[in-house]
Amino acid sequence: MNAFLDTLTDQDPLFVLAMGNTETGKIPGISAAGANPELTDYTPPADGELLLHGKCRSIDGVPITPDGIPTPAVISRAALNLLGTGTLLVDAGLNVTPEAPRVTLGGKAGGDIREATPVPYAEETYENARTLGKHLSRSSRPLVIGESIAGGTTTALGVLTALGYDAPVSSSLPENPLDLKREVVTAGLETSGMEPGEADPLEAVKEMGDPVIAAAAGLATGSETPVLLAGGTQMAAVAAVLARLDALDDVAIGTTRWILNDSSSDIEGLAAEIGVDLHATTLSFADTDIDGLRVYEQGVVKEGVGAGGLALVAEESVGRDAVQKETERVYRDLKE
Amino acid sequence: MNAFLDTLTDQDPLFVLAMGNTETGKIPGISAAGANPELTDYTPPADGELLLHGKCRSIDGVPITPDGIPTPAVISRAALNLLGTGTLLVDAGLNVTPEAPRVTLGGKAGGDIREATPVPYAEETYENARTLGKHLSRSSRPLVIGESIAGGTTTALGVLTALGYDAPVSSSLPENPLDLKREVVTAGLETSGMEPGEADPLEAVKEMGDPVIAAAAGLATGSETPVLLAGGTQMAAVAAVLARLDALDDVAIGTTRWILNDSSSDIEGLAAEIGVDLHATTLSFADTDIDGLRVYEQGVVKEGVGAGGLALVAEESVGRDAVQKETERVYRDLKE
Repeated sequence: MNAFLDTLTDQDPLFVLAMGNTETGKIPGISAAGANPELTDYTPPADGELLLHGKCRSIDGVPITPDGIPTPAVISRAALNLLGTGTLLVDAGLNVTPEAPRVTLGGKAGGDIREATPVPYAEETYENARTLGKHLSRSSRPLVIGESIAGGTTTALGVLTALGYDAPVSSSLPENPLDLKREVVTAGLETSGMEPGEADPLEAVKEMGDPVIAAAAGLATGSETPVLLAGGTQMAAVAAVLARLDALDDVAIGTTRWILNDSSSDIEGLAAEIGVDLHATTLSFADTDIDGLRVYEQGVVKEGVGAGGLALVAEESVGRDAVQKETERVYRDLKE
Repeated sequence: MNAFLDTLTDQDPLFVLAMGNTETGKIPGISAAGANPELTDYTPPADGELLLHGKCRSIDGVPITPDGIPTPAVISRAALNLLGTGTLLVDAGLNVTPEAPRVTLGGKAGGDIREATPVPYAEETYENARTLGKHLSRSSRPLVIGESIAGGTTTALGVLTALGYDAPVSSSLPENPLDLKREVVTAGLETSGMEPGEADPLEAVKEMGDPVIAAAAGLATGSETPVLLAGGTQMAAVAAVLARLDALDDVAIGTTRWILNDSSSDIEGLAAEIGVDLHATTLSFADTDIDGLRVYEQGVVKEGVGAGGLALVAEESVGRDAVQKETERVYRDLKE
């Protein structure tokens, strides 16, 4: 239906998952990417392991929200199975090492954006990711870039605000704690002394963001082939960085219906303001028998681990029904 | 000229460089991969940086032999330029971290094979590499696998001997210290209590090899696409491991003329015994103006960093003369 998506499905993309942690993500009430804030350190490596091995190794079971909803990595895994696409894990700054091969970029986990310079390695991470993106794209054709980081929508809001976008962001929680996120971002802006709209893009990541945004932006600018930023708000923040670097050519965002339908945010407006194309999968779990998936229709979790973008590419390739069926199969396998 | 090589050139391979260090490589007189034994820790990361960035970062200049001969990575870099092929660095067990993005496999640098269990992480490294090879091959099509590790022909002799091959091996030195290598291997066999020919292949790597052989073997077995093992003796050791794992389908060795012409070794006989196809580039520096390259014709250095295999693929694609010219250009650029 779309020339960009056609290229992506025709040319065997490589999926690159940028993983990281921040202290921002451990602020109570900020994130649902883990049963409790301390467990969020295990969520990205466990997501990565699930994609590579078909099950997690750093934890028993799979990452869940405080309400027990499973990670969107089950959707990603299903889409990757259908596409026969390989996954490369990138450690942009993790607290827990995945039990899997992973690219390291020399970064470390991020701090709390309310304090000074939470992402001191932003530039090094960006530059290393740029080199990686360049080399991977040469042989792998298109890149689909996903993320796994708790508290990522808050650091995304931080970067977007620093870059002058006044956009409400989504949340993995059923009730979006937007007031808390804004409080955190406002405190961060005060600490950094940044004037919204006047920040250099990498400075914005360094002072208000997280290592995953640095890595994803570097991968995208380095790539010589089309790039699908697979995610919601966080990939909007990446796109905002790319827009400032004049590096949005052949880049689009791919996300879920649940992000599009999130009345507490406005990703379509935000993407239009940034000037990046936005596509969404039509994947729905309205008619599934599986409770843990049907609740996605109520707006919990919504996106992550590249789920939306990967489902979109898989849907283009084999149809929506196949994506739903394979996700159900992956989910059932994990429960056994 | 060859269906296997045609597939490789037609399908945009990805070059994966497995890098490592061992204490074996620091035994005086064993290796020329560095101006002195202690500097060999810097050779693999510097080789990797040269391929990714066009210059080394961990050292000034480029890795050289004790006689000042430059690393074969200049040939690899030239071939990669001509092919437009991307490079992925793999840290199989390094003492010095490269200033570049690199995949880590959870291994550590190897010990001295004269002592017990010099490669304790062999199995973990192999398994992680297998996962990586599988995922990379899905999106990247064929893999060309190279190595950079000082003392690699000695650990290769160790693995080959443990697996029952009685083959003389090549050397980066003009005078092959074969007696010294055999002494080291004999001492290693005594320590490990291994009976030549009766070892399990991964046990052979663990007791007599190095982390790079573990990584290269894992990458090759994981790959679902054709694999070119780019190297000489060391890749023969990898092929020997693969033969024991019944994983030689769609695998060939690509090396240099200088390895083929090495009268102190017999790679053709060895490859035939293992049952792996062997191809060699016709690249020659007999008529070059550049002293640092012309000495390759005297049988110093001979191979490394995937030089032979990459030159072979480039030669298939753009012809031998272009490979020579581009290598001269890369060499001159580095001297400036």
